[in-house]
Amino acid sequence: MFKLYYVPGTCALASHIALAEAGAPYTTVKLDFKANQQNSPEYLAINPKGRVPSLVTDRGVLTETPAMLAFIAQSFPQAKLAPLDDAFEFAKVQAFNSYLCSTVHVAHAHKGRGYRWATEESTFADMKRMVPKTMGANFALIERDMLKGPWVMGQQYTVCDAYLFTLSGWLEGDSVDLATLPKVADHRKRMSERPAVQKVMAEQ
Amino acid sequence: MFKLYYVPGTCALASHIALAEAGAPYTTVKLDFKANQQNSPEYLAINPKGRVPSLVTDRGVLTETPAMLAFIAQSFPQAKLAPLDDAFEFAKVQAFNSYLCSTVHVAHAHKGRGYRWATEESTFADMKRMVPKTMGANFALIERDMLKGPWVMGQQYTVCDAYLFTLSGWLEGDSVDLATLPKVADHRKRMSERPAVQKVMAEQ
Repeated sequence: MFKLYYVPGTCALASHIALAEAGAPYTTVKLDFKANQQNSPEYLAINPKGRVPSLVTDRGVLTETPAMLAFIAQSFPQAKLAPLDDAFEFAKVQAFNSYLCSTVHVAHAHKGRGYRWATEESTFADMKRMVPKTMGANFALIERDMLKGPWVMGQQYTVCDAYLFTLSGWLEGDSVDLATLPKVADHRKRMSERPAVQKVMAEQ
Repeated sequence: MFKLYYVPGTCALASHIALAEAGAPYTTVKLDFKANQQNSPEYLAINPKGRVPSLVTDRGVLTETPAMLAFIAQSFPQAKLAPLDDAFEFAKVQAFNSYLCSTVHVAHAHKGRGYRWATEESTFADMKRMVPKTMGANFALIERDMLKGPWVMGQQYTVCDAYLFTLSGWLEGDSVDLATLPKVADHRKRMSERPAVQKVMAEQ
Protein backbone atom coordinates (compact mmCIF):
# COMPACT_ATOMS: atom_id res chain seq x y z
CA MET A 1 0.00 0.00 0.00
CA PHE A 2 1.33 3.43 -0.98
CA LYS A 3 0.50 6.70 0.73
CA LEU A 4 0.73 9.88 -1.36
CA TYR A 5 1.08 13.27 0.33
CA TYR A 6 -0.19 15.99 -1.97
CA VAL A 7 -1.57 19.50 -2.26
CA PRO A 8 -4.25 20.17 -4.88
CA GLY A 9 -3.00 22.19 -7.84
CA THR A 10 0.62 21.08 -7.43
CA CYS A 11 2.80 18.72 -9.44
CA ALA A 12 1.72 15.93 -7.06
CA LEU A 13 -1.18 15.42 -9.46
CA ALA A 14 1.16 13.65 -11.89
CA SER A 15 2.07 10.90 -9.41
CA HIS A 16 -1.54 10.65 -8.27
CA ILE A 17 -2.66 9.99 -11.85
CA ALA A 18 0.19 7.52 -12.39
CA LEU A 19 -0.83 5.55 -9.30
CA ALA A 20 -4.41 5.39 -10.55
CA GLU A 21 -3.35 4.41 -14.08
CA ALA A 22 -1.10 1.68 -12.66
CA GLY A 23 -3.94 0.21 -10.62
CA ALA A 24 -1.71 0.61 -7.55
CA PRO A 25 -3.17 0.27 -4.07
CA TYR A 26 -2.88 3.73 -2.52
CA THR A 27 -4.29 6.21 -0.07
CA THR A 28 -3.77 9.98 -0.10
CA VAL A 29 -3.13 12.65 2.51
CA LYS A 30 -3.99 16.22 1.55
CA LEU A 31 -1.75 18.93 2.99
CA ASP A 32 -2.67 22.59 3.29
CA PHE A 33 -0.01 25.10 2.15
CA LYS A 34 -1.96 27.95 3.81
CA ALA A 35 -1.57 26.23 7.19
CA ASN A 36 2.11 25.61 6.29
CA GLN A 37 1.58 21.89 6.93
CA GLN A 38 4.43 21.06 4.55
CA ASN A 39 6.81 22.54 7.14
CA SER A 40 5.29 20.88 10.21
CA PRO A 41 7.67 18.70 12.25
CA GLU A 42 5.51 15.67 11.39
CA TYR A 43 5.80 16.23 7.65
CA LEU A 44 9.47 17.26 7.72
CA ALA A 45 10.17 13.86 9.32
CA ILE A 46 8.70 12.32 6.16
CA ASN A 47 10.21 14.78 3.67
CA PRO A 48 12.86 17.13 5.06
CA LYS A 49 12.59 19.26 1.92
CA GLY A 50 9.13 20.44 3.01
CA ARG A 51 7.66 19.93 -0.43
CA VAL A 52 5.04 17.75 -2.04
CA PRO A 53 4.65 15.12 -3.33
CA SER A 54 5.99 12.41 -1.05
CA LEU A 55 5.25 8.76 -1.60
CA VAL A 56 5.44 6.53 1.44
CA THR A 57 6.17 2.92 0.50
CA ASP A 58 6.85 -0.25 2.51
CA ARG A 59 10.56 0.33 1.84
CA GLY A 60 10.69 4.02 2.74
CA VAL A 61 9.80 7.44 1.37
CA LEU A 62 10.31 8.60 -2.19
CA THR A 63 10.30 12.22 -3.37
CA GLU A 64 10.84 14.08 -6.66
CA THR A 65 8.23 13.60 -9.37
CA PRO A 66 10.45 12.13 -12.14
CA ALA A 67 11.81 9.50 -9.72
CA MET A 68 8.33 8.64 -8.45
CA LEU A 69 6.90 8.36 -11.96
CA ALA A 70 9.64 5.98 -13.10
CA PHE A 71 9.24 4.00 -9.88
CA ILE A 72 5.49 3.59 -10.39
CA ALA A 73 6.04 2.53 -14.01
CA GLN A 74 8.71 -0.01 -12.99
CA SER A 75 6.66 -1.34 -10.06
CA PHE A 76 3.59 -2.03 -12.22
CA PRO A 77 5.03 -3.21 -15.54
CA GLN A 78 1.71 -4.68 -16.69
CA ALA A 79 0.30 -1.13 -16.84
CA LYS A 80 2.89 -0.28 -19.55
CA LEU A 81 3.43 3.27 -18.30
CA ALA A 82 6.99 3.45 -19.69
CA PRO A 83 9.11 1.52 -22.23
CA LEU A 84 10.88 -0.49 -19.53
CA ASP A 85 12.71 -2.92 -21.82
CA ASP A 86 14.46 -0.33 -23.97
CA ALA A 87 17.02 1.87 -22.21
CA PHE A 88 17.02 4.47 -25.00
CA GLU A 89 13.23 4.84 -25.12
CA PHE A 90 13.11 4.88 -21.34
CA ALA A 91 15.70 7.68 -21.40
CA LYS A 92 13.49 9.67 -23.77
CA VAL A 93 10.66 9.38 -21.23
CA GLN A 94 13.00 10.46 -18.47
CA ALA A 95 14.41 13.37 -20.49
CA PHE A 96 10.89 14.68 -21.06
CA ASN A 97 10.05 14.41 -17.37
CA SER A 98 13.34 16.04 -16.39
CA TYR A 99 12.64 18.97 -18.70
CA LEU A 100 9.22 19.46 -17.08
CA CYS A 101 10.76 19.26 -13.62
CA SER A 102 13.87 21.40 -13.98
CA THR A 103 12.82 23.92 -16.65
CA VAL A 104 9.03 24.17 -17.00
CA HIS A 105 8.06 23.79 -13.33
CA VAL A 106 10.88 26.17 -12.37
CA ALA A 107 9.68 28.77 -14.87
CA HIS A 108 6.17 28.55 -13.41
CA ALA A 109 7.47 28.78 -9.84
CA HIS A 110 8.84 32.26 -10.53
CA LYS A 111 5.27 33.56 -10.50
CA GLY A 112 4.52 32.83 -6.87
CA ARG A 113 7.66 31.40 -5.28
CA GLY A 114 10.20 34.10 -6.03
CA TYR A 115 11.24 34.11 -2.35
CA ARG A 116 13.10 30.89 -3.07
CA TRP A 117 15.70 32.83 -5.04
CA ALA A 118 15.46 36.49 -4.00
CA THR A 119 14.21 38.88 -1.33
CA GLU A 120 12.96 42.12 -2.95
CA GLU A 121 9.34 42.87 -3.91
CA SER A 122 10.56 44.51 -7.12
CA THR A 123 12.31 41.24 -8.00
CA PHE A 124 9.15 39.22 -7.46
CA ALA A 125 7.25 41.60 -9.72
CA ASP A 126 9.94 41.34 -12.41
CA MET A 127 9.92 37.54 -12.21
CA LYS A 128 6.13 37.42 -12.37
CA ARG A 129 6.04 39.59 -15.49
CA MET A 130 8.24 37.13 -17.38
CA VAL A 131 6.27 33.94 -16.59
CA PRO A 132 3.87 34.16 -19.57
CA LYS A 133 6.90 34.48 -21.86
CA THR A 134 8.98 31.66 -20.36
CA MET A 135 6.05 29.27 -19.96
CA GLY A 136 4.91 30.19 -23.47
CA ALA A 137 8.37 29.47 -24.89
CA ASN A 138 8.71 26.19 -22.99
CA PHE A 139 5.34 24.97 -24.18
CA ALA A 140 6.00 26.14 -27.73
CA LEU A 141 9.03 23.83 -27.70
CA ILE A 142 6.91 20.99 -26.29
CA GLU A 143 4.26 21.62 -28.96
CA ARG A 144 6.81 21.73 -31.79
CA ASP A 145 9.42 19.13 -30.81
CA MET A 146 8.34 16.90 -27.94
CA LEU A 147 4.65 16.02 -27.98
CA LYS A 148 4.47 13.40 -30.73
CA GLY A 149 0.73 12.77 -30.46
CA PRO A 150 -1.68 11.41 -29.62
CA TRP A 151 0.43 10.88 -26.48
CA VAL A 152 3.75 12.49 -25.59
CA MET A 153 5.74 9.46 -26.74
CA GLY A 154 3.45 8.65 -29.67
CA GLN A 155 1.04 5.73 -29.70
CA GLN A 156 1.96 4.54 -26.20
CA TYR A 157 0.48 6.32 -23.19
CA THR A 158 3.21 6.84 -20.54
CA VAL A 159 3.82 8.64 -17.24
CA CYS A 160 4.91 11.63 -19.36
CA ASP A 161 1.27 12.22 -20.20
CA ALA A 162 0.23 12.49 -16.56
CA TYR A 163 3.07 14.95 -15.96
CA LEU A 164 2.36 17.06 -19.04
CA PHE A 165 -1.34 17.22 -18.16
CA THR A 166 -0.41 18.44 -14.68
CA LEU A 167 1.81 21.28 -15.90
CA SER A 168 -0.33 22.26 -18.87
CA GLY A 169 -3.09 22.82 -16.30
CA TRP A 170 -1.09 25.81 -15.09
CA LEU A 171 -1.02 27.59 -18.46
CA GLU A 172 -4.25 29.53 -18.11
CA GLY A 173 -3.16 30.90 -14.71
CA ASP A 174 0.19 31.76 -16.24
CA SER A 175 -1.53 33.78 -19.00
CA VAL A 176 -0.47 31.48 -21.82
CA ASP A 177 -3.18 31.10 -24.44
CA LEU A 178 -3.91 27.42 -25.06
CA ALA A 179 -5.27 28.36 -28.49
CA THR A 180 -1.65 28.91 -29.58
CA LEU A 181 -0.85 25.31 -28.57
CA PRO A 182 -3.33 23.10 -30.43
CA LYS A 183 -1.54 19.81 -29.76
CA VAL A 184 -1.22 20.57 -26.04
CA ALA A 185 -4.89 21.60 -25.91
CA ASP A 186 -5.90 18.41 -27.69
CA HIS A 187 -3.76 16.41 -25.24
CA ARG A 188 -5.54 18.05 -22.29
CA LYS A 189 -8.92 17.08 -23.74
CA ARG A 190 -7.82 13.49 -24.39
CA MET A 191 -6.41 13.18 -20.87
CA SER A 192 -9.62 14.55 -19.32
CA GLU A 193 -11.53 11.69 -20.91
CA ARG A 194 -9.45 8.94 -19.24
CA PRO A 195 -11.24 7.17 -16.37
CA ALA A 196 -8.11 7.25 -14.14
CA VAL A 197 -7.80 11.02 -14.60
CA GLN A 198 -11.48 11.55 -13.82
CA LYS A 199 -11.16 9.39 -10.71
CA VAL A 200 -8.14 11.38 -9.47
CA MET A 201 -9.71 14.77 -10.18
CA ALA A 202 -12.71 13.65 -8.10
CA GLU A 203 -10.40 12.46 -5.29
CA GLN A 204 -8.46 15.73 -5.17
CA MET B 1 30.08 5.09 -30.12
CA PHE B 2 28.64 8.03 -28.16
CA LYS B 3 29.38 11.70 -28.78
CA LEU B 4 29.07 14.06 -25.83
CA TYR B 5 28.64 17.81 -26.41
CA TYR B 6 29.84 19.73 -23.38
CA VAL B 7 31.13 23.02 -22.04
CA PRO B 8 33.82 22.93 -19.31
CA GLY B 9 32.51 23.92 -15.90
CA THR B 10 28.93 22.89 -16.63
CA CYS B 11 26.81 19.96 -15.45
CA ALA B 12 27.94 18.07 -18.56
CA LEU B 13 30.88 16.94 -16.42
CA ALA B 14 28.59 14.45 -14.65
CA SER B 15 27.73 12.56 -17.84
CA HIS B 16 31.35 12.76 -19.00
CA ILE B 17 32.51 11.07 -15.78
CA ALA B 18 29.72 8.49 -16.02
CA LEU B 19 30.79 7.57 -19.57
CA ALA B 20 34.37 7.12 -18.42
CA GLU B 21 33.34 5.11 -15.35
CA ALA B 22 31.17 2.88 -17.55
CA GLY B 23 34.02 2.19 -19.93
CA ALA B 24 31.77 3.42 -22.73
CA PRO B 25 33.22 4.20 -26.16
CA TYR B 26 32.83 7.95 -26.58
CA THR B 27 34.18 11.10 -28.14
CA THR B 28 33.57 14.65 -26.98
CA VAL B 29 32.85 17.98 -28.66
CA LYS B 30 33.61 21.10 -26.66
CA LEU B 31 31.30 24.07 -27.22
CA ASP B 32 32.10 27.69 -26.40
CA PHE B 33 29.40 29.66 -24.57
CA LYS B 34 31.26 32.92 -25.27
CA ALA B 35 30.92 32.29 -29.00
CA ASN B 36 27.25 31.33 -28.35
CA GLN B 37 27.87 28.01 -30.09
CA GLN B 38 25.06 26.42 -28.07
CA ASN B 39 22.63 28.54 -30.10
CA SER B 40 24.18 27.93 -33.52
CA PRO B 41 21.84 26.41 -36.14
CA GLU B 42 24.08 23.32 -36.23
CA TYR B 43 23.80 22.72 -32.51
CA LEU B 44 20.10 23.61 -32.26
CA ALA B 45 19.49 20.85 -34.81
CA ILE B 46 21.02 18.46 -32.27
CA ASN B 47 19.46 20.01 -29.17
CA PRO B 48 16.72 22.60 -29.79
CA LYS B 49 16.96 23.70 -26.15
CA GLY B 50 20.38 25.24 -26.83
CA ARG B 51 21.87 23.73 -23.70
CA VAL B 52 24.57 21.24 -22.80
CA PRO B 53 25.03 18.37 -22.38
CA SER B 54 23.74 16.44 -25.37
CA LEU B 55 24.59 12.80 -25.96
CA VAL B 56 24.46 11.61 -29.54
CA THR B 57 23.82 7.86 -29.75
CA ASP B 58 23.21 5.45 -32.63
CA ARG B 59 19.50 5.69 -31.83
CA GLY B 60 19.26 9.47 -31.56
CA VAL B 61 20.06 12.34 -29.22
CA LEU B 62 19.54 12.35 -25.46
CA THR B 63 19.46 15.44 -23.24
CA GLU B 64 18.87 16.19 -19.53
CA THR B 65 21.52 14.97 -17.09
CA PRO B 66 19.35 12.68 -14.91
CA ALA B 67 18.05 10.88 -18.01
CA MET B 68 21.54 10.53 -19.47
CA LEU B 69 23.00 9.24 -16.20
CA ALA B 70 20.32 6.55 -15.86
CA PHE B 71 20.77 5.65 -19.53
CA ILE B 72 24.52 5.22 -19.15
CA ALA B 73 24.01 3.08 -16.03
CA GLN B 74 21.41 0.90 -17.79
CA SER B 75 23.47 0.59 -20.98
CA PHE B 76 26.58 -0.66 -19.12
CA PRO B 77 25.18 -2.83 -16.32
CA GLN B 78 28.54 -4.49 -15.68
CA ALA B 79 29.85 -1.11 -14.42
CA LYS B 80 27.26 -1.20 -11.61
CA LEU B 81 26.63 2.55 -11.72
CA ALA B 82 23.07 2.20 -10.36
CA PRO B 83 21.00 -0.45 -8.53
CA LEU B 84 19.27 -1.60 -11.71
CA ASP B 85 17.51 -4.65 -10.30
CA ASP B 86 15.71 -2.87 -7.45
CA ALA B 87 13.08 -0.32 -8.45
CA PHE B 88 13.03 1.31 -5.02
CA GLU B 89 16.81 1.73 -4.77
CA PHE B 90 16.90 2.92 -8.38
CA ALA B 91 14.24 5.49 -7.46
CA LYS B 92 16.43 6.73 -4.59
CA VAL B 93 19.25 7.30 -7.09
CA GLN B 94 16.86 9.10 -9.40
CA ALA B 95 15.39 11.22 -6.59
CA PHE B 96 18.88 12.39 -5.64
CA ASN B 97 19.70 13.28 -9.25
CA SER B 98 16.36 15.02 -9.68
CA TYR B 99 17.00 17.15 -6.59
CA LEU B 100 20.39 18.20 -7.97
CA CYS B 101 18.85 19.00 -11.33
CA SER B 102 15.69 20.86 -10.36
CA THR B 103 16.68 22.49 -7.06
CA VAL B 104 20.48 22.71 -6.63
CA HIS B 105 21.44 23.48 -10.24
CA VAL B 106 18.56 25.96 -10.44
CA ALA B 107 19.70 27.73 -7.27
CA HIS B 108 23.21 28.04 -8.71
CA ALA B 109 21.90 29.31 -12.04
CA HIS B 110 20.44 32.39 -10.34
CA LYS B 111 23.97 33.73 -9.97
CA GLY B 112 24.72 34.13 -13.65
CA ARG B 113 21.61 33.18 -15.60
CA GLY B 114 19.00 35.47 -14.08
CA TYR B 115 17.96 36.56 -17.58
CA ARG B 116 16.18 33.23 -17.89
CA TRP B 117 13.53 34.41 -15.43
CA ALA B 118 13.69 38.22 -15.30
CA THR B 119 14.85 41.34 -17.13
CA GLU B 120 16.04 43.97 -14.60
CA GLU B 121 19.64 44.47 -13.43
CA SER B 122 18.38 45.03 -9.89
CA THR B 123 16.72 41.62 -10.04
CA PHE B 124 19.93 39.94 -11.17
CA ALA B 125 21.78 41.56 -8.25
CA ASP B 126 19.10 40.43 -5.80
CA MET B 127 19.22 36.88 -7.13
CA LYS B 128 23.01 36.81 -7.01
CA ARG B 129 23.07 37.93 -3.37
CA MET B 130 20.94 34.97 -2.33
CA VAL B 131 22.98 32.22 -4.04
CA PRO B 132 25.38 31.58 -1.12
CA LYS B 133 22.35 31.11 1.15
CA THR B 134 20.34 28.83 -1.16
CA MET B 135 23.34 26.75 -2.25
CA GLY B 136 24.45 26.58 1.38
CA ALA B 137 21.02 25.38 2.50
CA ASN B 138 20.76 22.83 -0.31
CA PHE B 139 24.18 21.38 0.47
CA ALA B 140 23.49 21.41 4.21
CA LEU B 141 20.53 19.13 3.47
CA ILE B 142 22.71 16.92 1.27
CA GLU B 143 25.35 16.78 4.01
CA ARG B 144 22.80 15.95 6.73
CA ASP B 145 20.27 13.70 5.00
CA MET B 146 21.41 12.49 1.60
CA LEU B 147 25.11 11.72 1.38
CA LYS B 148 25.38 8.40 3.21
CA GLY B 149 29.11 7.97 2.76
CA PRO B 150 31.55 7.00 1.57
CA TRP B 151 29.45 7.40 -1.59
CA VAL B 152 26.08 9.10 -1.97
CA MET B 153 24.18 5.82 -1.82
CA GLY B 154 26.51 4.23 0.76
CA GLN B 155 28.99 1.51 -0.10
CA GLN B 156 28.08 1.39 -3.79
CA TYR B 157 29.50 4.05 -6.12
CA THR B 158 26.76 5.28 -8.50
CA VAL B 159 26.08 7.97 -11.08
CA CYS B 160 24.91 10.15 -8.15
CA ASP B 161 28.56 10.55 -7.17
CA ALA B 162 29.56 11.93 -10.55
CA TYR B 163 26.66 14.39 -10.39
CA LEU B 164 27.33 15.49 -6.81
CA PHE B 165 31.02 16.00 -7.58
CA THR B 166 30.04 18.20 -10.52
CA LEU B 167 27.75 20.47 -8.52
CA SER B 168 29.89 20.57 -5.38
CA GLY B 169 32.62 21.95 -7.64
CA TRP B 170 30.52 25.12 -7.90
CA LEU B 171 30.44 25.80 -4.15
CA GLU B 172 33.60 27.83 -3.90
CA GLY B 173 32.49 30.12 -6.73
CA ASP B 174 29.11 30.41 -5.02
CA SER B 175 30.78 31.54 -1.76
CA VAL B 176 29.79 28.45 0.22
CA ASP B 177 32.53 27.37 2.61
CA LEU B 178 33.36 23.69 2.09
CA ALA B 179 34.70 23.58 5.64
CA THR B 180 31.08 23.68 6.84
CA LEU B 181 30.37 20.54 4.78
CA PRO B 182 32.91 17.93 5.89
CA LYS B 183 31.19 14.96 4.25
CA VAL B 184 30.85 16.80 0.95
CA ALA B 185 34.48 17.91 1.16
CA ASP B 186 35.57 14.36 1.87
CA HIS B 187 33.49 13.15 -1.07
CA ARG B 188 35.22 15.64 -3.38
CA LYS B 189 38.61 14.38 -2.28
CA ARG B 190 37.61 10.73 -2.74
CA MET B 191 36.21 11.48 -6.20
CA SER B 192 39.37 13.32 -7.26
CA GLU B 193 41.36 10.18 -6.62
CA ARG B 194 39.34 8.01 -9.03
CA PRO B 195 41.15 7.25 -12.30
CA ALA B 196 38.04 7.92 -14.41
CA VAL B 197 37.62 11.36 -12.83
CA GLN B 198 41.29 12.20 -13.41
CA LYS B 199 40.99 11.07 -17.03
CA VAL B 200 37.92 13.26 -17.60
CA MET B 201 39.42 16.32 -15.89
CA ALA B 202 42.43 15.96 -18.19
CA GLU B 203 40.16 15.62 -21.26
CA GLN B 204 38.12 18.72 -20.37
